[in-house]
Amino acid sequence: MPIVSAIYPGTFDPITNAHLDLIQRGLELFDEVIVAIAPNPVKGPTFTTDERVHLVEETLRANKLDKARVESFEGLLVDYVEKKNCKIIIRGLRAVSDFEYEFQMALMNRKLAPDIETIFLMPSESYTFLSSHMVKEVCKLGGDVSELVPDIVNNAMKNKFFGK
Amino acid sequence: MPIVSAIYPGTFDPITNAHLDLIQRGLELFDEVIVAIAPNPVKGPTFTTDERVHLVEETLRANKLDKARVESFEGLLVDYVEKKNCKIIIRGLRAVSDFEYEFQMALMNRKLAPDIETIFLMPSESYTFLSSHMVKEVCKLGGDVSELVPDIVNNAMKNKFFGK
Amino acid sequence: MPIVSAIYPGTFDPITNAHLDLIQRGLELFDEVIVAIAPNPVKGPTFTTDERVHLVEETLRANKLDKARVESFEGLLVDYVEKKNCKIIIRGLRAVSDFEYEFQMALMNRKLAPDIETIFLMPSESYTFLSSHMVKEVCKLGGDVSELVPDIVNNAMKNKFFGK
Amino acid sequence: MPIVSAIYPGTFDPITNAHLDLIQRGLELFDEVIVAIAPNPVKGPTFTTDERVHLVEETLRANKLDKARVESFEGLLVDYVEKKNCKIIIRGLRAVSDFEYEFQMALMNRKLAPDIETIFLMPSESYTFLSSHMVKEVCKLGGDVSELVPDIVNNAMKNKFFGK
Amino acid sequence: MPIVSAIYPGTFDPITNAHLDLIQRGLELFDEVIVAIAPNPVKGPTFTTDERVHLVEETLRANKLDKARVESFEGLLVDYVEKKNCKIIIRGLRAVSDFEYEFQMALMNRKLAPDIETIFLMPSESYTFLSSHMVKEVCKLGGDVSELVPDIVNNAMKNKFFGK
Amino acid sequence: MPIVSAIYPGTFDPITNAHLDLIQRGLELFDEVIVAIAPNPVKGPTFTTDERVHLVEETLRANKLDKARVESFEGLLVDYVEKKNCKIIIRGLRAVSDFEYEFQMALMNRKLAPDIETIFLMPSESYTFLSSHMVKEVCKLGGDVSELVPDIVNNAMKNKFFGK
Repeated sequence: MPIVSAIYPGTFDPITNAHLDLIQRGLELFDEVIVAIAPNPVKGPTFTTDERVHLVEETLRANKLDKARVESFEGLLVDYVEKKNCKIIIRGLRAVSDFEYEFQMALMNRKLAPDIETIFLMPSESYTFLSSHMVKEVCKLGGDVSELVPDIVNNAMKNKFFGK
Repeated sequence: MPIVSAIYPGTFDPITNAHLDLIQRGLELFDEVIVAIAPNPVKGPTFTTDERVHLVEETLRANKLDKARVESFEGLLVDYVEKKNCKIIIRGLRAVSDFEYEFQMALMNRKLAPDIETIFLMPSESYTFLSSHMVKEVCKLGGDVSELVPDIVNNAMKNKFFGK
Repeated sequence: MPIVSAIYPGTFDPITNAHLDLIQRGLELFDEVIVAIAPNPVKGPTFTTDERVHLVEETLRANKLDKARVESFEGLLVDYVEKKNCKIIIRGLRAVSDFEYEFQMALMNRKLAPDIETIFLMPSESYTFLSSHMVKEVCKLGGDVSELVPDIVNNAMKNKFFGK
Repeated sequence: MPIVSAIYPGTFDPITNAHLDLIQRGLELFDEVIVAIAPNPVKGPTFTTDERVHLVEETLRANKLDKARVESFEGLLVDYVEKKNCKIIIRGLRAVSDFEYEFQMALMNRKLAPDIETIFLMPSESYTFLSSHMVKEVCKLGGDVSELVPDIVNNAMKNKFFGK
Repeated sequence: MPIVSAIYPGTFDPITNAHLDLIQRGLELFDEVIVAIAPNPVKGPTFTTDERVHLVEETLRANKLDKARVESFEGLLVDYVEKKNCKIIIRGLRAVSDFEYEFQMALMNRKLAPDIETIFLMPSESYTFLSSHMVKEVCKLGGDVSELVPDIVNNAMKNKFFGK
Repeated sequence: MPIVSAIYPGTFDPITNAHLDLIQRGLELFDEVIVAIAPNPVKGPTFTTDERVHLVEETLRANKLDKARVESFEGLLVDYVEKKNCKIIIRGLRAVSDFEYEFQMALMNRKLAPDIETIFLMPSESYTFLSSHMVKEVCKLGGDVSELVPDIVNNAMKNKFFGK
């Protein structure tokens, strides 16, 4: 029987505990989860693609998630998913506003590649309020986010924002 | 490697083409899909549990979905899922109102049985408007719903509502 | 050039000032508005179909809305609309919860009768909170709803609930 | 300086830990919180008004919430609030669907009594999924809800549903 | 009887099949539809106003929509609508997020010009996922959007993004 | 008994009648309301922090709201609230989209400072459509917003946009 891989795409700028929670849920369902980092040039990311890959890599290692790995990709997500011989995209849904955006994306992806299915998982309700954007805003203003992100990410943000 | 089963619970009163679409999507993801019919005594179902099981059974057969099967269950959904040695619940999400109800259910189920994961799939957008309730209302008033439900369900509804 | 009629369907149990506002907006857009009262046997209406027709009739007369009239209908809304040689259904949208229900209805109606178009109008924001259900609840508990419904409706509710 | 009381109305059928959380938040803001139980004859409550008052009373006592007390009321909420010489209604907001219903209620109450203000509090996110309805459904089907309701309520539900 | 015109405003950067669907629905309801292109300097459009006008013009011609025409406007939409002696604005509603933004716009416009009415139409459900923004993103990344936009728009986007 | 202060944070760029409505509601509930202006460097404000403080100050004076005052703050909101020995944050809720953003903010703030409570108030329904952003857009395009903002703000916007 072949190995079933699922791809969890996003910008992961940077990875938070909510992303980690979702990766762990994905690994309960599938043999392998590939965290796929999109370059996201539009918004202008805080961390470079290489930095983001590195932060996910270290987070996976620190949590002993051997069956998950991280890659970056360029171009259309569905092209990347097909190139990996994969059929499953994982996305998290936290709130109604997520819901509509995610559905538009998933419908567009289905239009472009009908064989690829997007499945939605619900993160722990304790992460309802947690987004990379919010974590960065709070960290920049001096708030303590050590319970919301992996240690390595907390340090990387402090370095990035305060140069220490 | 063990067979991965997913349970698709609902009242299926009666099964529609939207349910069928979701079963087919589930079968692309998992080795087996068990359609699990809840008795739903509160609302007072239109079809008896036995009738609903039968309509799903015939629909699966007509569509040659050998790897899906139907059962009815009583009691808590999570108890039933555990008894089947299953860990995955499938639910469809069409609209924002679905979203909130489904999330409350999924969070409660996670509280009761943390090892069971609910995954959400998006039906074809052509079924956005389709619910068992709506189909029954239209059929009762003489509307043609032959494109929205399996043939056997269309006939069963006509029998139930008009005795023919 | 033929007269353009629009049909404004609902249960109108009873008509409120929010309905009246929408009828007036419809008359600015079309030559004629037909208020079409559905029997609504499911929920069990407070006023009989005849009473509801009468209350709308008197409300239209009191507001000198000569180009609007009221009818009741049975069966599928789209069948009724077609029988009247009409192509336009008017519905009001107040809130997100309205939105989803109305869209499901409108999509189903479009499926059943593709030539009929549903258009949505926005009532005055001062009627955001106003529904027939809410008005009846408040009136029953002794609240003053005289600014929320036509006088004749206010009297009819007092009669119905308190027999005076 | 006079004592500032806030009224927390609802059906409390029965009180859950989410209600308790909100009462405690209210007591941080105001000198006194009056839990006001509406009879709710429409839905047909599971517990009588007296039983519901008793369950709240015991819950307040068990949690040493001396500055909160419970009453039942009949008629319009705003009339009751005015009779108590109170100006503040507290309501909890968990989800978008709550939001719209609560806003319609609050706008209607403001129309009826402009001097009374409704304030909305956010319960702990760990109670997002928690409602009296959901708790009763799970308890009835044999699920363990001991972490979701006060002990006395857990026992009362078991008595009510299983006669033990 | 005078001709009834409706104005369909937007940025149309560029026109998609969802816009086209809405224009066609508008023409079933009114004698004439004027597509009114707003300059939208804030976001920085992909196509210039002249290019956008041209793309709509060619799309209308290719679809033989003689009773629709395109213009650009500057300043307040309601001022433009009044200058055209028009009273009707058409807008499409696809999703809950649309709904709230559109309602805020429509309420503001009603405040500025009470005689102008905004009516909302529902595009085909097959265009739920379709926006100018999404189409441009997909095209830029090499995806095939030929079924989602008029041919002339597809070519114009390829020219713009790849210079061919 | 100590004075109970509530903090109403925002960018107030500029203050509108909807903000004013909320300040007045806050003053009915608490002894003092402190309008706390965040610098908001991200979006790039239209008015400088000093200008925004001045416009609020004059608006409070013109409306004789002696018990409200304005300050600006830097850094984390919860740090500022604690420094003021305050425990209450006031926020307005108008729409579903507000709701989700506000809840994410409030949950994050509760995580950072569990003793601070956010309470939500509902502005008058006549301000549903009113935001600083919308007011500025309309004013820039020559629309009359004199009924939507204090006089001093109307003049300040005209000065800012048209230099008169």
